[in-house]
Amino acid sequence: MTIAVFPGSFDPLTNGHLDLIERASRMFDQLIVAVGQNTAKRGVFTASERVAFIETEIAGLDNVSVQVETGLTVDFMRSVHATVLVRGLRNSTDFEFEQGIAGMNRTLAAEMDTVCLMAAPKYQFVSSSLLKEVAQFGGDLTSLVPPAVAEGLRDRLERE
Amino acid sequence: MTIAVFPGSFDPLTNGHLDLIERASRMFDQLIVAVGQNTAKRGVFTASERVAFIETEIAGLDNVSVQVETGLTVDFMRSVHATVLVRGLRNSTDFEFEQGIAGMNRTLAAEMDTVCLMAAPKYQFVSSSLLKEVAQFGGDLTSLVPPAVAEGLRDRLERE
Amino acid sequence: MTIAVFPGSFDPLTNGHLDLIERASRMFDQLIVAVGQNTAKRGVFTASERVAFIETEIAGLDNVSVQVETGLTVDFMRSVHATVLVRGLRNSTDFEFEQGIAGMNRTLAAEMDTVCLMAAPKYQFVSSSLLKEVAQFGGDLTSLVPPAVAEGLRDRLERE
Amino acid sequence: MTIAVFPGSFDPLTNGHLDLIERASRMFDQLIVAVGQNTAKRGVFTASERVAFIETEIAGLDNVSVQVETGLTVDFMRSVHATVLVRGLRNSTDFEFEQGIAGMNRTLAAEMDTVCLMAAPKYQFVSSSLLKEVAQFGGDLTSLVPPAVAEGLRDRLERE
Amino acid sequence: MTIAVFPGSFDPLTNGHLDLIERASRMFDQLIVAVGQNTAKRGVFTASERVAFIETEIAGLDNVSVQVETGLTVDFMRSVHATVLVRGLRNSTDFEFEQGIAGMNRTLAAEMDTVCLMAAPKYQFVSSSLLKEVAQFGGDLTSLVPPAVAEGLRDRLERE
Amino acid sequence: MTIAVFPGSFDPLTNGHLDLIERASRMFDQLIVAVGQNTAKRGVFTASERVAFIETEIAGLDNVSVQVETGLTVDFMRSVHATVLVRGLRNSTDFEFEQGIAGMNRTLAAEMDTVCLMAAPKYQFVSSSLLKEVAQFGGDLTSLVPPAVAEGLRDRLERE
Repeated sequence: MTIAVFPGSFDPLTNGHLDLIERASRMFDQLIVAVGQNTAKRGVFTASERVAFIETEIAGLDNVSVQVETGLTVDFMRSVHATVLVRGLRNSTDFEFEQGIAGMNRTLAAEMDTVCLMAAPKYQFVSSSLLKEVAQFGGDLTSLVPPAVAEGLRDRLERE
Repeated sequence: MTIAVFPGSFDPLTNGHLDLIERASRMFDQLIVAVGQNTAKRGVFTASERVAFIETEIAGLDNVSVQVETGLTVDFMRSVHATVLVRGLRNSTDFEFEQGIAGMNRTLAAEMDTVCLMAAPKYQFVSSSLLKEVAQFGGDLTSLVPPAVAEGLRDRLERE
Repeated sequence: MTIAVFPGSFDPLTNGHLDLIERASRMFDQLIVAVGQNTAKRGVFTASERVAFIETEIAGLDNVSVQVETGLTVDFMRSVHATVLVRGLRNSTDFEFEQGIAGMNRTLAAEMDTVCLMAAPKYQFVSSSLLKEVAQFGGDLTSLVPPAVAEGLRDRLERE
Repeated sequence: MTIAVFPGSFDPLTNGHLDLIERASRMFDQLIVAVGQNTAKRGVFTASERVAFIETEIAGLDNVSVQVETGLTVDFMRSVHATVLVRGLRNSTDFEFEQGIAGMNRTLAAEMDTVCLMAAPKYQFVSSSLLKEVAQFGGDLTSLVPPAVAEGLRDRLERE
Repeated sequence: MTIAVFPGSFDPLTNGHLDLIERASRMFDQLIVAVGQNTAKRGVFTASERVAFIETEIAGLDNVSVQVETGLTVDFMRSVHATVLVRGLRNSTDFEFEQGIAGMNRTLAAEMDTVCLMAAPKYQFVSSSLLKEVAQFGGDLTSLVPPAVAEGLRDRLERE
Repeated sequence: MTIAVFPGSFDPLTNGHLDLIERASRMFDQLIVAVGQNTAKRGVFTASERVAFIETEIAGLDNVSVQVETGLTVDFMRSVHATVLVRGLRNSTDFEFEQGIAGMNRTLAAEMDTVCLMAAPKYQFVSSSLLKEVAQFGGDLTSLVPPAVAEGLRDRLERE
């Protein structure tokens, strides 16, 4: 049985993330979405809020769950008996960033491996950070994030 | 009639920007340089100072004007009836960054489009952020920015 | 008045090309699609066939026409009084290839310029060469090329 | 149960391929190595020879098998009930190439997906085509390919 | 006689840096490692601590020395009569970053030049910033940095 | 004493090559330009013609010589006691190509190393293959290659 982990900050969750979750859930026996809690940088949403957004959206996927992780991803993976780390790639900047992380993780935990899924073309330009910039100025994000996230972004970020 | 917008922070204006402005002005009926006012991050020059530097340099270009923009570029473009957004590309890092922004803008405003010009080879390494680093240490920037900008950078940034 | 040229081999014409043609036609006063005739390499379709496919598809675009070109693109551009060369970019491999060509063209004809449009996300993976490989094995291309091209590819390439 | 396919020309099989096969075999229930038979271009080794090299090396991996494929990879995948296509990525040139293929395959077969593994750092520069160039001039490849392949390359390619 | 400078922040020194230092020391008559003192951003280690780590490791290399630099690298190079600036490249993101810096330095000091060494495959994913992130969570870095640096990182960064 | 080799096909020699030769000659005690003789593919100029073009241009550089090489570059380097291989980088496509070759060479000859110089901005788009395409159609290449090469290309390639 292969347990996979999809780590990220999910601040906020996007439809691009959901597409990857749904696709990875079909490949692996179990998929755990790991919400990273970055202690240095304050997010738009708290870790619990991000978990709640994800839980709502994965309700229909039996083999997917979500947890908060606070340390090294490889330590989290060990704790849940996962051997596969899933990441999405939108472009070659993403690729080189992930290649660095994967190389580091290989050193830290040789028994684990990283698999990358290609972002769906229609989500290739969707990044959480760009979404937050757009949300600040009231841009319409309904096609890019779940409805609850769109509403949350409006409440938190939009300037008056 | 095609109205194009060239948005940026122009902090500071470089000869690379001017080359793009001059080239875009020959392609489109009207070109509006849009100086972004980033409320989060303080620039070296104020938005008004940046507008002033640009105004001086575009004096000879009849179909070019400059304005401050404070929100989403697509909203600004709508307000001035522009349909084309102009950006320069120096290398593939730039390309992938702009590809993300262009994809987002396409979602926000399907009736607008982005065109990219290739940076002139001699300005391919010129970035506002690198210029600011060099200016701090008294590097000679006279071949890379207009004279008034070079002087302004010296006044503001050079350490004693 | 700005006359733009969109050069390519168009062997075969794809929906990605048509998207670029349609978008460029809105930006410039006149757009000429230039079908390159590569004397070294035999295409799937002759230059005349490629012109015919394009003509059918651009019927609704008043300011677009199509011609065969046989020499340097810059010489063709001079002959039709064009000053802007239009190209599409799908990824950074495309970007660096086009950056090389644009640099060469700038040397050959300083008065002309290249503008790049970002490929639409849904056509980002569409290349004429990949299409031809797929067509050989009977892959269904109806969502990626005009109907007449799909039929033509089937007739010419599909193995029995 | 997830059946994965690892397609390639394997002309010749390298230690980089074997590393990917071994790693993918741990992730998926079954892995089928699919040796492409390119009708246009003659390989150094025939498809049967390439299959034989692979069979020797995968002898210890219970859930891995090898087959020749002659058409579209997605058609082959359907015929063996596979849903996952595995590819290795060495650098961003690889990434963009694979992104194109994956996008095309998504159009041809929406129910299938591509996963990419990062090439191990020590095999990041190993490509079949570069190996063949080196083999022609008698370069020592024993650390990069299985012993039988090294011997085969010497027999076929080395100039006298 | 060619004097080369290898500038960096070395916060912290990695085995990847040491590999580059050792290789560059074989190519040039003299190599000076220049530890940059970034006044804006506080490092994990002070400039003197970084110099001490480097001095320990280069003890066996007769033609290598280490100094702190506080201004423009080209000004430092002039002061030590160096004409070659050495940098390592891990991937194309690095390449484009260094290409920008090299272009700027060429403008500031035409008589100097930049040479790039390819990072050794096994250090291709090693970056000082990634190391610091891992060190915070107690990841084992003994294969990636000299022993004294590993200990120093543990003391400074590890959270309790 | 460091002996460096600058290998290439030089078919034809460009001003970009000459810029690299001149710069590398200042860094290393001796520089040998190695003209590769590709037995598979016929060049525009013979190896002897290419050597002659280079000899003319390097007449003023005391520590530079030119030779034909017919095998592996590392074997050639051993035969001339060289330890450094010099290559130029124009963009990240070049970088990734060279990274592959350098990795292979490191395996074949651990005692040798590759250094890369950044192409001068004004020669960043100059490639021998693009030059040959332009020459076929009578494009003016006088600013990109030595006069004798420009004349030679006209004689050999231009179509009537």
